[in-house]
Amino acid sequence: MITVAVDACGADLGPAEVAAGAALAAERGVGVLLFGPAREIGSVATGVELVDAPVSIAKASDPVAAVRSTPEASIVQAARAVADGRAQALVSGGSTGSALAAALFNMRRDRGIHRPALALPMPIPGSPVLLLDVGANVSCRPEHLFQFAYMGSAFAQAVMGIDSPRVALLSNGEEPAKGTPDLVAVHERLAGPAGAGLRFIGNIEGTQVAAGAADVVVMDGFTGNITLKLIEGISGRTMVAVRDAAMTSWRGKLGGLLLGPSVKRLRQEIDPESTGGAYMLGLRQLGVVAHGRFTRHGFAKAIEVAARGVQEDVIAKTRSALKDVGALRSADQPEALSQPSGPTASVSG
Amino acid sequence: MITVAVDACGADLGPAEVAAGAALAAERGVGVLLFGPAREIGSVATGVELVDAPVSIAKASDPVAAVRSTPEASIVQAARAVADGRAQALVSGGSTGSALAAALFNMRRDRGIHRPALALPMPIPGSPVLLLDVGANVSCRPEHLFQFAYMGSAFAQAVMGIDSPRVALLSNGEEPAKGTPDLVAVHERLAGPAGAGLRFIGNIEGTQVAAGAADVVVMDGFTGNITLKLIEGISGRTMVAVRDAAMTSWRGKLGGLLLGPSVKRLRQEIDPESTGGAYMLGLRQLGVVAHGRFTRHGFAKAIEVAARGVQEDVIAKTRSALKDVGALRSADQPEALSQPSGPTASVSG
Repeated sequence: MITVAVDACGADLGPAEVAAGAALAAERGVGVLLFGPAREIGSVATGVELVDAPVSIAKASDPVAAVRSTPEASIVQAARAVADGRAQALVSGGSTGSALAAALFNMRRDRGIHRPALALPMPIPGSPVLLLDVGANVSCRPEHLFQFAYMGSAFAQAVMGIDSPRVALLSNGEEPAKGTPDLVAVHERLAGPAGAGLRFIGNIEGTQVAAGAADVVVMDGFTGNITLKLIEGISGRTMVAVRDAAMTSWRGKLGGLLLGPSVKRLRQEIDPESTGGAYMLGLRQLGVVAHGRFTRHGFAKAIEVAARGVQEDVIAKTRSALKDVGALRSADQPEALSQPSGPTASVSG
Repeated sequence: MITVAVDACGADLGPAEVAAGAALAAERGVGVLLFGPAREIGSVATGVELVDAPVSIAKASDPVAAVRSTPEASIVQAARAVADGRAQALVSGGSTGSALAAALFNMRRDRGIHRPALALPMPIPGSPVLLLDVGANVSCRPEHLFQFAYMGSAFAQAVMGIDSPRVALLSNGEEPAKGTPDLVAVHERLAGPAGAGLRFIGNIEGTQVAAGAADVVVMDGFTGNITLKLIEGISGRTMVAVRDAAMTSWRGKLGGLLLGPSVKRLRQEIDPESTGGAYMLGLRQLGVVAHGRFTRHGFAKAIEVAARGVQEDVIAKTRSALKDVGALRSADQPEALSQPSGPTASVSG
């Protein structure tokens, strides 16, 4: 049985809601090692083991410092459980910054990986798309983006069940020469023999992200954070505008009323809880950052997807694909850990 | 009377449609000097003077080279007319690349301006927002972004009629330390005494762009191009998803039918033709790049907004605001012309 270490702290609805999500995942056959305040959580379901960890650093303003100075924090204990082999994947209940820092320091980067990335399956209507990096690295070098392409492709294949994922770079034009010099360089490399392990389709623009032109879209963490928050903001704003437009006339109000159930189904389709959250790729084990706003269903999904990632061995598959094209970092090349950056977010209808 | 030089080439509906837009603008009191193929345009309305310029470089793959080697091209002749004082502003009928290059080489950068920027008034429902740069400069230094803030603020005030425009930087977090090192540097400068001529509200995230948190949002041209195309793509996609959701049941179909007129009004509100196009700021005269998809109404609007910019003296106001805070480039500091980059686009409902 696969066991997932879960940090119950940081969720908007409190640790008990995360525990309820853990119970749902346990019912579906995933073992859960839950770290959080026992006093708030109370008794847990069969299949869930509770470790009392009342100290939360989910709201720390400097997550890196907090992780270093607070070994007893719930997220640090959860990450250590994965590092020690007591669990095979990590799920965090809310804060991206502390989850990234705890995972980096304890679970560590996988061998040959330059930088971990945060990958978000974006529930765009009709065409889910995996965006990465959405905030682990503000700036990225070409070799980082190159590896992200492989990391995202392996994840989309193993976990999202997409057969031969179309991988694209987000740029300001489709032509290979468009974009920053770093983007042009990684495009050239991906289009050459080193891209042989991928279905690289070239550059795409913002409009094409929305149109589902690619399954995996690669970008630096600065652009990725802006991208996911624009998608979240604009889709929400447009739905509100349609509702407001309906309210301007009796005819519209009646129409809106009749349309209600259809729109509700659409909202469910683009519900961020359906994807489980953002995935930390490039570590020795898989990590998931659930959204702080999630209910138990979102947390259950996050735990289940993490378990599926372990089962499908997404990390070994990524490493082997990168090895095949000679794109693993050589062991003697040191690399500073990047400072985890923006918090994650997702489409809220 | 203000005269606007208009390039009729490059529009999807052909030069005659641009001429029809020129006729509408002339009816409303703007003089138009129209450059395009006389054979296709035929006779023109009173107030419009036609200069036969049958050579178009709107589809040139290398606009910079095309502008240099084709002095007889319609866009080059139109830009030269502005430089020579035969007209006071430029409107291009379609191609961003050739319009930018022709304007740079003929109308030239304004004194003290580092780089021109392309500014797009984005018709987000309920809260129009000016984005710049949306594609004139793929990468920008802090001093460029700093000037863009002043250029955008002056335009929003003089032309969009916003009293004290809220100016923000687009970043991956609200905190001043968020973003790339260049963004952090320009934030510091704008928040200090040099930002005194502005209502600088700090960093905003993608979600806040959609929520109308700022009137002017400053970013480099790479991020700007991605931003505007994501907004265009996601808002369009969401409207289609609502329509598709309606089509899944009889109840929904009836609702959609009743909602039709309201949604049509919403589409009109976010119609890119309502804003006239993208504005080239930082040149000695104002330039407008209309969207190639525009009908005569969009072109008329572009011509009228250009004339209003001249009347309100937006360029002198920008220069004077920058001079007041000592942010004009000194005359002896040479700067290479940047290669114009991505084509413009806009929200299509």
